[in-house]
Amino acid sequence: MTTNTKRLRTFLSQMSRLVEEADGNEHVLLERGKTYLEALVAHDDWLPEEWAAANPDRYQQHLLYCDPQDRFCVVSFVWGPGQQTPIHNHTTWGLVGMLRGAEISEAYEMQDGKPVAGETERLDPGQVVMVSPDVGDIHKVWNACDDRVSISIHVYGGDIGAIERNVFPPEGGMKSFISGYSNSVMPNIWGTQA
Amino acid sequence: MTTNTKRLRTFLSQMSRLVEEADGNEHVLLERGKTYLEALVAHDDWLPEEWAAANPDRYQQHLLYCDPQDRFCVVSFVWGPGQQTPIHNHTTWGLVGMLRGAEISEAYEMQDGKPVAGETERLDPGQVVMVSPDVGDIHKVWNACDDRVSISIHVYGGDIGAIERNVFPPEGGMKSFISGYSNSVMPNIWGTQA
Ligand SMILES: [Fe+3]
Ligand SMILES: [Fe+3]
Ligand SMILES: [Mg+2]
Repeated sequence: MTTNTKRLRTFLSQMSRLVEEADGNEHVLLERGKTYLEALVAHDDWLPEEWAAANPDRYQQHLLYCDPQDRFCVVSFVWGPGQQTPIHNHTTWGLVGMLRGAEISEAYEMQDGKPVAGETERLDPGQVVMVSPDVGDIHKVWNACDDRVSISIHVYGGDIGAIERNVFPPEGGMKSFISGYSNSVMPNIWGTQA
Repeated sequence: MTTNTKRLRTFLSQMSRLVEEADGNEHVLLERGKTYLEALVAHDDWLPEEWAAANPDRYQQHLLYCDPQDRFCVVSFVWGPGQQTPIHNHTTWGLVGMLRGAEISEAYEMQDGKPVAGETERLDPGQVVMVSPDVGDIHKVWNACDDRVSISIHVYGGDIGAIERNVFPPEGGMKSFISGYSNSVMPNIWGTQA
């Protein structure tokens, strides 16, 4: 498979302009960002294999790009069969676009200090959904395919791997966590790359 | 040696703001960029070793960062003993800051289709010089140390590894070239990195 990294460069250029022009307006960021991310995940021919690598022990969060002013980052989530997140929040706006396979997101609300499950939503290739403290920020996500790797592309309004946020144990309460990233190196997609 | 990548993140944040605010004004870019680059190369404790790797066959150009809108990039030039560039131009503004060792830059002017050598300038750690089509764009550069690796940090007004520019053979004429970059992977300096 050809790795058409031009698609990612185009997306990063669009997002870079967007965070400058939107000036923190979350509605503008989510609406315009969604159209850009839909175009990116409409084709599965651009993600270098280093960023598509699964790990049998846990789902992977590979950083693809972080804005130096921390206004957005792009991360590939790579799910092995059976892998899932804890119940967690983000504390910033986010967009999730399905690239390969499928995932299921289950929304949660806190009631009397305990997370209570709401709707589930299945995301198939090409689809994009939003998260944010306004539109619903607590969820749990898992690979919808029990026989293959699934990959979704996430965009957040900050350096998500450095943000202090929370997980919500089923028995109640919450714990702070900082996710970091799974990857210590990133492909160089600049210069004379395709 | 501790790798204090925070210095590079701070520099990228400053440059990212600068290219937004300068709106293409080369004087502003060079003057403010110079103060930021001087602060970056004032300490030699932040360059991850992947970006400091020399190659016995030729000098290395490791991309550290490229702006998605192609308004600036940051490159580490790593010189082995005896290594030098051809006579070349850049076609865009640039800043060169010496991090480790020393280098010598020899300015050239084209006269009757041939490159004629002018002044030479030695760059020592902490020093920053400018290049641009306005202030002088043709030069040849080499490692000033014949017994050790030298490293300079370059900032250019574009994705320099993708820009079509020129080399000038001593016998006259010019050839177009695109330099690319030496590195296929880049360290991830985001998330919970120091
Ligand atoms: Fe999430
Ligand atoms: Fe040069
Ligand atoms: Mg480019």
